[in-house]
Amino acid sequence: MRPVSDNLDFNERNASAVISGRLRPENDRLGVAVSGIVSHIHALVSELRPSREELREIVAFLTDVGHATEDHRQEWVLLFDVLGVSTLVETMNSVRPAGATSNTPRGPFYRADAPILPRGASISLDARGEPLTVHGRVTDLDGNPLAGALLEVWQPNADGIFENQQPDLQPEFNLRGKFVCDDDGGFIFRTVKPGGYNIPCDGPVGRLLQRLDYPLTRPAHLHFRISAQGYQTLVTQIFDADDPSLTQDAILGVRRDLVGEFRKSGAGEWELAYSFVMATDKTQEQAS
Amino acid sequence: MRPVSDNLDFNERNASAVISGRLRPENDRLGVAVSGIVSHIHALVSELRPSREELREIVAFLTDVGHATEDHRQEWVLLFDVLGVSTLVETMNSVRPAGATSNTPRGPFYRADAPILPRGASISLDARGEPLTVHGRVTDLDGNPLAGALLEVWQPNADGIFENQQPDLQPEFNLRGKFVCDDDGGFIFRTVKPGGYNIPCDGPVGRLLQRLDYPLTRPAHLHFRISAQGYQTLVTQIFDADDPSLTQDAILGVRRDLVGEFRKSGAGEWELAYSFVMATDKTQEQAS
Repeated sequence: MRPVSDNLDFNERNASAVISGRLRPENDRLGVAVSGIVSHIHALVSELRPSREELREIVAFLTDVGHATEDHRQEWVLLFDVLGVSTLVETMNSVRPAGATSNTPRGPFYRADAPILPRGASISLDARGEPLTVHGRVTDLDGNPLAGALLEVWQPNADGIFENQQPDLQPEFNLRGKFVCDDDGGFIFRTVKPGGYNIPCDGPVGRLLQRLDYPLTRPAHLHFRISAQGYQTLVTQIFDADDPSLTQDAILGVRRDLVGEFRKSGAGEWELAYSFVMATDKTQEQAS
Repeated sequence: MRPVSDNLDFNERNASAVISGRLRPENDRLGVAVSGIVSHIHALVSELRPSREELREIVAFLTDVGHATEDHRQEWVLLFDVLGVSTLVETMNSVRPAGATSNTPRGPFYRADAPILPRGASISLDARGEPLTVHGRVTDLDGNPLAGALLEVWQPNADGIFENQQPDLQPEFNLRGKFVCDDDGGFIFRTVKPGGYNIPCDGPVGRLLQRLDYPLTRPAHLHFRISAQGYQTLVTQIFDADDPSLTQDAILGVRRDLVGEFRKSGAGEWELAYSFVMATDKTQEQAS
């Protein structure tokens, strides 16, 4: 039997205890989560002491976020992204030993069905943008090559737009593809330099951020997903070190080890050399 | 100039500071609110350490709450109600001296356009339910009558349903009306005994509460709004002391001073005697 909660004296001091007393026993994960959420919400209410009108504004904002959310417009994910929640949760769930490349949230533009391409191929199907060659190696923590590792890449075009955001304007699978690493763990492919972009500013989240003078920018980056038998799958982004918004990523996804140097080669084309370091599955189990 | 926030080492320890550093100066109410919300969300994430799947479930729940929200179905308000937020905010915004009747949240079923009725009239237009007479006085803190005070009443029927929830089944304005207090501050009207009810259990909030074994019950009550020149408008509910769910109000609105005794009179009909005590407008200003 749950204890009967006497709510007749419900107030700021006992609010969380009264509600928690009504929930299932504390060993239930959902009950623990809701108790924690309730405690923090009550603490927030006590700190902020909202007026009735402010409470109505909060409800209206949350309602707007829900109404703006559709299959192709994940406004709630965007809100969690700009609050840093997505990155924090990703970090907690991919604890790795020093030296292993960091994970980032995967983002909404990944496709599992991109084609496998030969070493050195170009993923730019419309040849728009400044040519860029990307090459490097995939190794374990000791620098041993991970031959046969599968490297998937996807990126926005020079305007900062992914092909599945504008299916009528870009060829299907533009700027995405899969490559199998060679015996030395090496990979090389050709593409164009990605552009940075802004997160959507026409929804409730974007409008809130603008009122707060909060950056809407995402620095230019390429997305990678690298998988190899026995290793933790690496889902990450490599960012352009020269992008002026490098430290102002709206979704807080940049990590120091994920900053890449885009250099002009002798032929005047861009080149990015970046090597990925994978941790074994076992390491994950020990760390978590 | 805002300081440039370096997010390259964004982590659990600095997360809130990094995001707060990006917001407008702290004297802006919106910035303070968002900073506080961000700090508590980050603390929650650190405490609960959700898996990626759990984060997706949270996003799905919040999205569902938004999608369930329509003009006639305020699912977000319901969530804030069952978390005690509505009652806490109402309490904070109606601080009163000892002896004055407490406010409660107004709820969604109030109508300002109900008819003014003569002393002693019945508000039951369909004569369904057990007859009840309600009478009492409206006074100031010293017991002086507030002649001419306007008392508005609205209540659910014996099945726990308000007329504007079922416009096709109940006459318009059934179980609601306005009364002007007499020279002694007195009022009397006839009605039927209200029934308790459950909050909606077919939406995401109700389904969550059921998983948590959280009560969905609202004890039987009548709503009142009492206004008088120079006094704080009183918006409250009087609850049936004998309702078995009195201490299990889903929205935590019951206050000890708002519990009324429904008694059987000699004629076998129900009677509720309850007097309201109003605080002056000035008291509010001093207290807040």
